[in-house]
Amino acid sequence: MKTLGVGLIGTGYMGKCHALAWNAVKAVFGDVARPRLVHLAEIDAQLAAARATEFGFEKATADWRALIADPDVDVVSVTTPNQFHPEMAIAALEAGKHVWCEKPMAPAYADAERMLAAARASGRVAALGYNYIQNPVMRHIRTLLDEGAIGAVNHIRVEMDEDFMADPEAFFYWKSEGTSGYGALDDFAVHPLSLLWYLFGHVEAVIADMTKPYLDRPLQHGGRRAVENHDAASVLVRLSGGISAVLMANRAAWGRKGRITLQIFGSKGSILYDQERMNEFELYQADGRATEQGFRKVLAAPAHRPYDRFIPAPGHGLGFNDLKIIECHELIRAISGEPASIVTFEDGLRIEKSVHAMAESFHQRRWIEIG
Amino acid sequence: MKTLGVGLIGTGYMGKCHALAWNAVKAVFGDVARPRLVHLAEIDAQLAAARATEFGFEKATADWRALIADPDVDVVSVTTPNQFHPEMAIAALEAGKHVWCEKPMAPAYADAERMLAAARASGRVAALGYNYIQNPVMRHIRTLLDEGAIGAVNHIRVEMDEDFMADPEAFFYWKSEGTSGYGALDDFAVHPLSLLWYLFGHVEAVIADMTKPYLDRPLQHGGRRAVENHDAASVLVRLSGGISAVLMANRAAWGRKGRITLQIFGSKGSILYDQERMNEFELYQADGRATEQGFRKVLAAPAHRPYDRFIPAPGHGLGFNDLKIIECHELIRAISGEPASIVTFEDGLRIEKSVHAMAESFHQRRWIEIG
Amino acid sequence: MKTLGVGLIGTGYMGKCHALAWNAVKAVFGDVARPRLVHLAEIDAQLAAARATEFGFEKATADWRALIADPDVDVVSVTTPNQFHPEMAIAALEAGKHVWCEKPMAPAYADAERMLAAARASGRVAALGYNYIQNPVMRHIRTLLDEGAIGAVNHIRVEMDEDFMADPEAFFYWKSEGTSGYGALDDFAVHPLSLLWYLFGHVEAVIADMTKPYLDRPLQHGGRRAVENHDAASVLVRLSGGISAVLMANRAAWGRKGRITLQIFGSKGSILYDQERMNEFELYQADGRATEQGFRKVLAAPAHRPYDRFIPAPGHGLGFNDLKIIECHELIRAISGEPASIVTFEDGLRIEKSVHAMAESFHQRRWIEIG
Amino acid sequence: MKTLGVGLIGTGYMGKCHALAWNAVKAVFGDVARPRLVHLAEIDAQLAAARATEFGFEKATADWRALIADPDVDVVSVTTPNQFHPEMAIAALEAGKHVWCEKPMAPAYADAERMLAAARASGRVAALGYNYIQNPVMRHIRTLLDEGAIGAVNHIRVEMDEDFMADPEAFFYWKSEGTSGYGALDDFAVHPLSLLWYLFGHVEAVIADMTKPYLDRPLQHGGRRAVENHDAASVLVRLSGGISAVLMANRAAWGRKGRITLQIFGSKGSILYDQERMNEFELYQADGRATEQGFRKVLAAPAHRPYDRFIPAPGHGLGFNDLKIIECHELIRAISGEPASIVTFEDGLRIEKSVHAMAESFHQRRWIEIG
Repeated sequence: MKTLGVGLIGTGYMGKCHALAWNAVKAVFGDVARPRLVHLAEIDAQLAAARATEFGFEKATADWRALIADPDVDVVSVTTPNQFHPEMAIAALEAGKHVWCEKPMAPAYADAERMLAAARASGRVAALGYNYIQNPVMRHIRTLLDEGAIGAVNHIRVEMDEDFMADPEAFFYWKSEGTSGYGALDDFAVHPLSLLWYLFGHVEAVIADMTKPYLDRPLQHGGRRAVENHDAASVLVRLSGGISAVLMANRAAWGRKGRITLQIFGSKGSILYDQERMNEFELYQADGRATEQGFRKVLAAPAHRPYDRFIPAPGHGLGFNDLKIIECHELIRAISGEPASIVTFEDGLRIEKSVHAMAESFHQRRWIEIG
Repeated sequence: MKTLGVGLIGTGYMGKCHALAWNAVKAVFGDVARPRLVHLAEIDAQLAAARATEFGFEKATADWRALIADPDVDVVSVTTPNQFHPEMAIAALEAGKHVWCEKPMAPAYADAERMLAAARASGRVAALGYNYIQNPVMRHIRTLLDEGAIGAVNHIRVEMDEDFMADPEAFFYWKSEGTSGYGALDDFAVHPLSLLWYLFGHVEAVIADMTKPYLDRPLQHGGRRAVENHDAASVLVRLSGGISAVLMANRAAWGRKGRITLQIFGSKGSILYDQERMNEFELYQADGRATEQGFRKVLAAPAHRPYDRFIPAPGHGLGFNDLKIIECHELIRAISGEPASIVTFEDGLRIEKSVHAMAESFHQRRWIEIG
Repeated sequence: MKTLGVGLIGTGYMGKCHALAWNAVKAVFGDVARPRLVHLAEIDAQLAAARATEFGFEKATADWRALIADPDVDVVSVTTPNQFHPEMAIAALEAGKHVWCEKPMAPAYADAERMLAAARASGRVAALGYNYIQNPVMRHIRTLLDEGAIGAVNHIRVEMDEDFMADPEAFFYWKSEGTSGYGALDDFAVHPLSLLWYLFGHVEAVIADMTKPYLDRPLQHGGRRAVENHDAASVLVRLSGGISAVLMANRAAWGRKGRITLQIFGSKGSILYDQERMNEFELYQADGRATEQGFRKVLAAPAHRPYDRFIPAPGHGLGFNDLKIIECHELIRAISGEPASIVTFEDGLRIEKSVHAMAESFHQRRWIEIG
Repeated sequence: MKTLGVGLIGTGYMGKCHALAWNAVKAVFGDVARPRLVHLAEIDAQLAAARATEFGFEKATADWRALIADPDVDVVSVTTPNQFHPEMAIAALEAGKHVWCEKPMAPAYADAERMLAAARASGRVAALGYNYIQNPVMRHIRTLLDEGAIGAVNHIRVEMDEDFMADPEAFFYWKSEGTSGYGALDDFAVHPLSLLWYLFGHVEAVIADMTKPYLDRPLQHGGRRAVENHDAASVLVRLSGGISAVLMANRAAWGRKGRITLQIFGSKGSILYDQERMNEFELYQADGRATEQGFRKVLAAPAHRPYDRFIPAPGHGLGFNDLKIIECHELIRAISGEPASIVTFEDGLRIEKSVHAMAESFHQRRWIEIG
């Protein structure tokens, strides 16, 4: 494979995370070509130039279309705010670039559908940034499930909680606007949904409850403004095969910082996971003497691939940014035509479809089946 | 107050627990009269005699009606299987006895209503065995909520899980019969409901999903029999004031032994609790520097009344049976006309009403409002 | 066996704990005679009478010698401050009573030796209150060690920490006087030593370091007084067979309330225990795939005898006071001539000998071998 | 500052870790010049070439002296086995290069002294790889100690345990040879010693016990060979100011993978840390009501600098390799003449001096004072 030319649009939270991954992927994995960091776009030319220097990109621009038009760019990282994803991703695909777009695809389902159509038409790789599925621990959980280590799964609970909306006196900002989306559901319930999808396949039916912990918030220059979406959502879910699940998301959960928990119950055992301790999982297997049965806390280790590409010793711990390096590696493999574990636009659309169904089920106060 | 004459019907799991409480309550608390253990009833005369000797009761009988007719008996502990509760409790109340009946009141709601009517007619104390609310830790959680330690509560999650139905090849027995009840819901979701009631008041609206992890079970003499109720239930709940909650119960949850967890989210902090570690709770308060904010794990201590009546040193730990001693003490106080924290038949009926509403919401696949 | 007549001297912390055990042991275990609570002694006649009523004793006295002279008393619980143990225990043994004396035996080693001599001369059961070894979890740890579940043990760490001496501005009181003992070492390091003895046998060589976190403390009426003993002690230990251990005790350890931890390392695995979570232990066994190896957290369950005598369901939890009930049951078995797990005065003397050796090793700044 | 030319000798465990850090440091921190990856040395030319491609180095060599002679190289990462450190580090310093050498300095103390002499003579930055002190959590613990958050520290316990030597039937290899060092003491007790040094300063007196869990090990081609050093070591320690500490290290501790725990007790509170959960620490402060006192578990967050340079959201987690990036950043600052937190050869020599004193105290069975 020839050198892969990289373009990066956006350099905020996830933009920097992409940049770190592009810088590290060759040194970590060795088995792919070193990407060439070609072009970086930011909203402001000066900022773009500064970031290009920091992140090691050759060119900088305030015009993302110039980046997409750059013939040296083969793949584009789209890490801008969600509303810009459709336009940028579609333009990049139409220009024949591969696309690595941060989740979610788009606030509007129709836009997400257009993105998928563009991806299909392009024949390029179109992947979404759902890095939690790349955790070696999560991969191993899937292996355990596939092997039947806990038998047939019959019930799942998944929670995602943070507290960045927990302060009732924090100023109103765009995350509380209705145009930004439903709130907790699409702001981050898509993450646990990506885990459900990765481990168990798609959601078939849902009914959701959603609440506003705070009805209004102060404005910076006085007065208060009504909150327009819901910071907490809880959903009864049916997966294929009649498996029941409960999905809970709360971005106003004081004390929770990056919590995504899984409780998976099967006919022979159970598995537990908590993203705040992402280098561990717990496994209960119902065998042996009753006097020694218990949840086994397993620490991430080289035997959980590809942890070994980062550290040869067990229990030393990967970090959040390392997951993006693994995702980057999978993306490169996909671009090279090798088998890879990525969330395609097709997968992503299905995830977002279930989010919209959840919101609908709340407003209609009834179960919604997803076709 | 004169000596309280005690009758005990049933000597199984909870029967023994009552017996231990009646034996210990005076020595632990000191401020009540020592109960006189008068009469014990079991299904078999020989067993009754043996247990009376063990538990320190004066008389034994295989005829529970004889116990109820005993003029030396002032209060009757009813700890038999659920279907016998109505007949025994009503007979005892009608005989002018106080009643301490294990939860739930009755499999059929109409029977529970008759029990309440009998209690009202009798003017006696009619209390239910909901010992988890008696934990000094739980009492302190209520104090914290009342004091506003975590501000206004806006979201709650409560889980109750055990694994006694988790083995798919365990023989079919009465707990899987439809006549025994809905399954997880009334078998033990009443416990977390008692906590919700104790801390937050009553449930106003519900929608439940229920599942059968295993469709059938082997019979002891060959063949298999279809399971008739649901081992797992998940419920979206609205409490008064629009607070949202999620209630999850699973008696087929491998690895869970006596788990009842609470996650309580408020405008100023959060509280966590897990019954498997009943001598602890966690408190997050959103104040002070960001660099030191975190969940504080508090160990049960004498300052959490009435822990001090058991042990003068912190962190030494109460046990499950100690909660029943506290409940017994509250019952004696109620009988003596003093302020007491018990779950009356009135409270219990409301708890059971919400259980029936949950089952109805599942069958009708819609939200049910509770009057 | 005829009814066992019980005398109780002292009704403070451990006195009440004994009283609760004597009240409960028959109802819990069933297989022993119900003790007759005959005589209770306290320093003040009025207090004695009040406590006798509370705890269910027939007679009360301010003269403990009267209690020992009572022909209806067969066994005497000695729960007074440590300096009174020798006189009372020896008098009781000389009067032909069995003795159940709280640890430690005596501040002075010579007094402890006299107690042992009296026990030997009497032919009676002379047991010490070391209830932590009675935990069903601890018993099971011994079973696992005996079975070789973790292979040959080669290293042990044991910690005991509380914080009742942690406040530097708490008033000086008798626990800081040199006459009360060495400080942390004999005040509570005897507890972890009882666990080492129970699980591994006797200590053979020691070298200790001891420190005074605070050199003086305020007096209630002004001024300060120098602290005379050591609140923290750390000891390098050799057990028989060359096994190395580290014993650490600190009664000024902020945040520790009733912590006693064990870390036991063997050739095939490890075992962990923490008294603050006394209904759990952790077991690591080096077998199976590397991808699932981890510490298994096992919850106390009926299969861990005699937990089943208290509660038929796993994971529901015993309390600190329940351990004393088990100890009481073992004592009654010993008195009845049945095999029993108690700490005799002989065992206790050996434990205290090692404490004195530790103190000596600190003062001499060298290893001390224990004969 | 001009571009920094980097040479890397060794590409194993820590070699790769250095390479990842050199690749990432500019993108993470932004405020330093992007290093130029000039020259890489490995024992074999082909391997050197392959690794140079992977890690992004311009030149590769099998002759480390060529690398040191390279005028484009300004700083040399020395990550070879310990016995090669003195020769390479001294040669690099003599050639006017800055040196970043992995710990420990050298198996022999005299060699370490020569390294320090070379560093002093060179006037270059000579830093050791002690990355655990770079954890934002550890930095914050130091801040808390400096601020007096837990008052005056009086007692410390530190443990370092892994299980790579725990299998008694693993083949004998060089780590069990006496020439490799004392065993647990210098193999990894230097890490916890670096934490003690970082937080509290230097060790003043020690007495150690050391044990061989297994006396011999199988050889690959049959027979067994005696183990020549000690896999477990426990040390009583006195720090300056009379603070007592206990240091425990065990490389045969089944189930421990990367455990380094700290327990720090002060006059106003306590701090706990465990490297296996490196994104957390626990803080107990003895203030407020007794009913809410407890250990607060704090998750790493942007407010713990420089976590914010990696991730803008709290609780998302850094990894082991990220610590090396922070160390790399500090090194570059030191080279640039800015204030930096590194472990110099001077600091490292003092750490190693205390290790040698520990070994001596074991062999002489007495306390050793360190000048």
